[in-house]
Amino acid sequence: MKIKLINPNTTWSMTEKMAVGAQRVLASGTELIAVSPAFGPPSIEGWYDDALAVPGMLAEIKKGEAEGVDAYVIACFGDPGLYAARELAKGPVIGIAEAAMHTASVLAPAFTIVTTLARSRGMIWHLAERYGMQRFCRNVRAIDVEVLALEEPGSAARQRVVDACRVAIDVDGAEAIVLGCAGMVDFCAELQQTLGIPVIDGVTAAVKWAESLVALGLSTSKRGEFAQPLVKTYDGMLAPFSPGQTG
Amino acid sequence: MKIKLINPNTTWSMTEKMAVGAQRVLASGTELIAVSPAFGPPSIEGWYDDALAVPGMLAEIKKGEAEGVDAYVIACFGDPGLYAARELAKGPVIGIAEAAMHTASVLAPAFTIVTTLARSRGMIWHLAERYGMQRFCRNVRAIDVEVLALEEPGSAARQRVVDACRVAIDVDGAEAIVLGCAGMVDFCAELQQTLGIPVIDGVTAAVKWAESLVALGLSTSKRGEFAQPLVKTYDGMLAPFSPGQTG
Amino acid sequence: MKIKLINPNTTWSMTEKMAVGAQRVLASGTELIAVSPAFGPPSIEGWYDDALAVPGMLAEIKKGEAEGVDAYVIACFGDPGLYAARELAKGPVIGIAEAAMHTASVLAPAFTIVTTLARSRGMIWHLAERYGMQRFCRNVRAIDVEVLALEEPGSAARQRVVDACRVAIDVDGAEAIVLGCAGMVDFCAELQQTLGIPVIDGVTAAVKWAESLVALGLSTSKRGEFAQPLVKTYDGMLAPFSPGQTG
Amino acid sequence: MKIKLINPNTTWSMTEKMAVGAQRVLASGTELIAVSPAFGPPSIEGWYDDALAVPGMLAEIKKGEAEGVDAYVIACFGDPGLYAARELAKGPVIGIAEAAMHTASVLAPAFTIVTTLARSRGMIWHLAERYGMQRFCRNVRAIDVEVLALEEPGSAARQRVVDACRVAIDVDGAEAIVLGCAGMVDFCAELQQTLGIPVIDGVTAAVKWAESLVALGLSTSKRGEFAQPLVKTYDGMLAPFSPGQTG
Amino acid sequence: MKIKLINPNTTWSMTEKMAVGAQRVLASGTELIAVSPAFGPPSIEGWYDDALAVPGMLAEIKKGEAEGVDAYVIACFGDPGLYAARELAKGPVIGIAEAAMHTASVLAPAFTIVTTLARSRGMIWHLAERYGMQRFCRNVRAIDVEVLALEEPGSAARQRVVDACRVAIDVDGAEAIVLGCAGMVDFCAELQQTLGIPVIDGVTAAVKWAESLVALGLSTSKRGEFAQPLVKTYDGMLAPFSPGQTG
Amino acid sequence: MKIKLINPNTTWSMTEKMAVGAQRVLASGTELIAVSPAFGPPSIEGWYDDALAVPGMLAEIKKGEAEGVDAYVIACFGDPGLYAARELAKGPVIGIAEAAMHTASVLAPAFTIVTTLARSRGMIWHLAERYGMQRFCRNVRAIDVEVLALEEPGSAARQRVVDACRVAIDVDGAEAIVLGCAGMVDFCAELQQTLGIPVIDGVTAAVKWAESLVALGLSTSKRGEFAQPLVKTYDGMLAPFSPGQTG
Repeated sequence: MKIKLINPNTTWSMTEKMAVGAQRVLASGTELIAVSPAFGPPSIEGWYDDALAVPGMLAEIKKGEAEGVDAYVIACFGDPGLYAARELAKGPVIGIAEAAMHTASVLAPAFTIVTTLARSRGMIWHLAERYGMQRFCRNVRAIDVEVLALEEPGSAARQRVVDACRVAIDVDGAEAIVLGCAGMVDFCAELQQTLGIPVIDGVTAAVKWAESLVALGLSTSKRGEFAQPLVKTYDGMLAPFSPGQTG
Repeated sequence: MKIKLINPNTTWSMTEKMAVGAQRVLASGTELIAVSPAFGPPSIEGWYDDALAVPGMLAEIKKGEAEGVDAYVIACFGDPGLYAARELAKGPVIGIAEAAMHTASVLAPAFTIVTTLARSRGMIWHLAERYGMQRFCRNVRAIDVEVLALEEPGSAARQRVVDACRVAIDVDGAEAIVLGCAGMVDFCAELQQTLGIPVIDGVTAAVKWAESLVALGLSTSKRGEFAQPLVKTYDGMLAPFSPGQTG
Repeated sequence: MKIKLINPNTTWSMTEKMAVGAQRVLASGTELIAVSPAFGPPSIEGWYDDALAVPGMLAEIKKGEAEGVDAYVIACFGDPGLYAARELAKGPVIGIAEAAMHTASVLAPAFTIVTTLARSRGMIWHLAERYGMQRFCRNVRAIDVEVLALEEPGSAARQRVVDACRVAIDVDGAEAIVLGCAGMVDFCAELQQTLGIPVIDGVTAAVKWAESLVALGLSTSKRGEFAQPLVKTYDGMLAPFSPGQTG
Repeated sequence: MKIKLINPNTTWSMTEKMAVGAQRVLASGTELIAVSPAFGPPSIEGWYDDALAVPGMLAEIKKGEAEGVDAYVIACFGDPGLYAARELAKGPVIGIAEAAMHTASVLAPAFTIVTTLARSRGMIWHLAERYGMQRFCRNVRAIDVEVLALEEPGSAARQRVVDACRVAIDVDGAEAIVLGCAGMVDFCAELQQTLGIPVIDGVTAAVKWAESLVALGLSTSKRGEFAQPLVKTYDGMLAPFSPGQTG
Repeated sequence: MKIKLINPNTTWSMTEKMAVGAQRVLASGTELIAVSPAFGPPSIEGWYDDALAVPGMLAEIKKGEAEGVDAYVIACFGDPGLYAARELAKGPVIGIAEAAMHTASVLAPAFTIVTTLARSRGMIWHLAERYGMQRFCRNVRAIDVEVLALEEPGSAARQRVVDACRVAIDVDGAEAIVLGCAGMVDFCAELQQTLGIPVIDGVTAAVKWAESLVALGLSTSKRGEFAQPLVKTYDGMLAPFSPGQTG
Repeated sequence: MKIKLINPNTTWSMTEKMAVGAQRVLASGTELIAVSPAFGPPSIEGWYDDALAVPGMLAEIKKGEAEGVDAYVIACFGDPGLYAARELAKGPVIGIAEAAMHTASVLAPAFTIVTTLARSRGMIWHLAERYGMQRFCRNVRAIDVEVLALEEPGSAARQRVVDACRVAIDVDGAEAIVLGCAGMVDFCAELQQTLGIPVIDGVTAAVKWAESLVALGLSTSKRGEFAQPLVKTYDGMLAPFSPGQTG
């Protein structure tokens, strides 16, 4: 089966890191396609970035449909455009925040999400509510580091993640940690070792979930809310995004 | 004061209809600018359309900032890109679903929203939850008519709205009606007359709320979640959307 | 149009202060009538005071109906008797807690309410829930000062409000402040200047909302819960409150 | 011990009926005082009546404190002034809606409340939420009969209650019935016999709960929200209600 | 009437202590039967113990049915097997956590539960949610002492309970305390004296509630969820538990 | 890896059917052990059966720990003893109701659960709430057929499931179906074909999720609520269940 991992920002080094992480957990026979869009924000740090990452992500879904992709993963912790993607794709589409939170909820009664910027906390709480995961989420803690700082070798960001996790355990009563940024995928195993509690990375969790859904013969319901977009012609520079007939 | 009414779809006849409705309720001294984006979907009927209406809407916010706009109204019942717009604008930004639901909640203990397509019901319930208005919303009823049918003279859509409202009163126990599509703005007064209960149109409600906020000297908090987007350079065709320095 | 501002306590200096604040934000053509009841508690500091402020407030609504009032504002942060008033009045009735919380919710993702006495916190949380605003309300902080202390020139109360707001920002993560007492109306602008985030006073917010509703041709639904009180004869000293025929 | 049952309306025949019902379930050694206020509405059918029943009810609490009452029951299904009464009384105060709903929740997973007028349904739902009982309450059904019709011998009201209960069982999936009006106290046993599921009357349930609390040595917490009203002088006709020193 | 108090653990000293406490509050004419099961865990400290205490408790219910018991109390703060017991028993069955939380909710707007082990906190929060009492529960605090330590004369556990209560009042804003372990029954009165706010012990509260329900002629609904277990034959060592015909 | 599928009832034909279904979706390299307990109820139809299925299920977990099992699936739609099992097992433990509901929630905005007996509906709603899945669950419909009827060749049960699903789509607005009984595992693919929307069987969904968790190196958090049961000696016939030292 073919799974397409879409990093909705344009920073290729991050996409590569995710691909490496994801490859490690794939079942034999699963092919992974990891991409970044050709246009849009290099990092997603707020609602404006999030909104403008969506067209590039959707362009990749559209391409994926032509490529015979079986399932998609949207690999930014804001799960940008998840429902729009579900309309467009035939196969299942999983967001990494979605996968990480659901996974944590079956491993521990309470988790804390550790993310990069404080301004993203509201968006993450919205997702927790939307997915029904609010009741498991004790806190969303920000380490106050810009997303791309995680990419810089030798940055202090990694230590700040560890520190935030320890506070989450002691103060929030967290019994698991959810990594709230796709760029943390490579910390995950080490962090779990250090902390002695489950540490969930959404990228790998989402890839495995997508793989399972395909194995189970399941896909997004096309009956109502996630039916194909209605056929119409968009205006101006977005004309290429016009939803067309599907056969 | 200057209020900018942004119809996020590109159908100018709808924008014009909204402008006419809004003009009627403005205080003296309020100037209304009503626009449609230069690009994007001609109607918004699902998550995909909604996502792709956002860039055009945000372009209009950006222009508005240069034009000295005091407050904005996003005039589609999905409130597309509302939080992204709040990051970008200095003045307040109100969505029409937001305005309509809040308004209905101070007039009646229970309302039903009447919208066009069934596939939009989920999105509207999400907004009701996000705004805290779920507890007042008894139902979201769809008349199963495409958005632009409301624009066709002599269409049966108007009667279907009346019929849906009557069912809402009898079956849902609705004591007020919220019109769930900006294109219904011109039905509002007549419908209220017919039904004998409050009928709330979001376009006019939002314009008045925006006007009040400016009069009160209030604006979006820029302290955290809605702070200006971080300065960065977007890639490819979205480079013109790169968030820049603001002075 | 005529808007009647009812301070449900009998302290006229407070009523006057509110009237001054409200006058500043009115549209041209709006006439404001500001009153206190002839009987009842001089300040409202708990459920008992709240309950006994209601008869005097309702007497003012009844008079207002004879005076041709278009809309009412109940100007105590417990919104005493709001639903009873909605039964009695033909025009819309807005509570200041209601107006302040709804307004804050469209300006910031999270607000804290700063009030006078700790014993009122429970009542305010009840209102937040009733209005659907609980999800935006991070905390209700009390400065532990009796309501009328706000009226004394040179009291330390003003500084305690500032201090509580700063703690709200730092500890609660509040991105806006709601003033939880009608007697704080004259602090509002200065406080907003000091704190750099929106500070919402319910009195002015409610008056503008009432004005907008009248401009929009909207009023309380009379279909069910808020229909006119059933005609009947009350006993004893409350006989003058007997709900009568309305024509 | 002395328990005071306060019917907050002035209809003595209803009070008498409740007293008869309550007497039947008292433990030996419990003395019941059943009263109606000297002033106020003869029946409570909406928010306005509810608000104006409170002063008379509070006057009875005040008298009760002088009479050495150990616990109070407020015997109208809107539980008018319950929290104000808790401030004033030293002993526990129970509302009949409160007692009935809590009781039903330990006997069945789901109940329906059968009340008199449709306009009271909103108020009852508010109480269900306030008491945490919303999750057990499947529906609030009104038989559309005025409260005092229950007092008329030979009225059809009794049959309408039975009919509503049967619909509640079949349509709502109710596994218990809560009688939503104090005036139904004398139907309770017969109705339970007829329906074969628990039928809970709030008057008797509240009286027994009050009795138990006294036996357990428990009373309302006076630490915060329900502390004695602050000492102050009320104006005008309500001066006799001024909260005074308690010793 | 006969009330059977089942301590679901096998520690008889604890059962005896509960019986002493319960005897003190019984009405004349009520007979109390206090038992521990013949098999199972000696203390219940987590989900595993909880699950394995249920068979022994159910065996006692079955015996009770033969003994003509009118109502049952399950006397462990996790309320183990409460719904299974409701299927089996003809009379009402009350859990002590259930009774304590409901009781606290009519005495104070907010309570904190003080329990023994931190690992039980999640289970208690589940119960608070299930009973609708979450909105009154500010916190569940653990004193980190094993359940049976409460049985040892001279242990420091009693002081730790007092300390936890004081923190609950100061930090959580608790206005009442719920004792979160049946083994604390004998602290209750003294603790209430010390703290000056209501302290609720579930054992006595449950016994009185059970007694009231019997006096009111009320019992568990047998219409749906709590109908008698379907007749069938269990396998192996649990064959004696097979649900049989009841006549 | 070794995954142990525990059917908590003693009906081996059902276990076998589940094993067949599960085998079909396993990744290469996964070994499945499917068992029924040696003692307990032959079917689980209510809270009493559910409670008494737990000891047998836990005995299988204990054996599994000795057998080197990597993850467990509890294969009854009431997820009996899930949290007790999490305390006992080192690897992850997934319930089939849990897996089915989470899975459905990423495929459709709304699902209905179709189960066997009406009396189980309450238990299933409890699980939906506990897992945060209530917001996706539109209804729990019962076909009123005993669990073991699904095992009889030629029974009408299968058609009743189809009928219930169609009503779920039309009346509840379900966009996916969750099969609410482990015994329906063999209907799943055919039903999905017939209905044209996703049909989720919990047995296969849980097995794939368990497999993914092991691949991801994730397990139940042992930090708090799900730590190993405390070492102690149980009394009587349950002595063999005494939690022991683990090394």
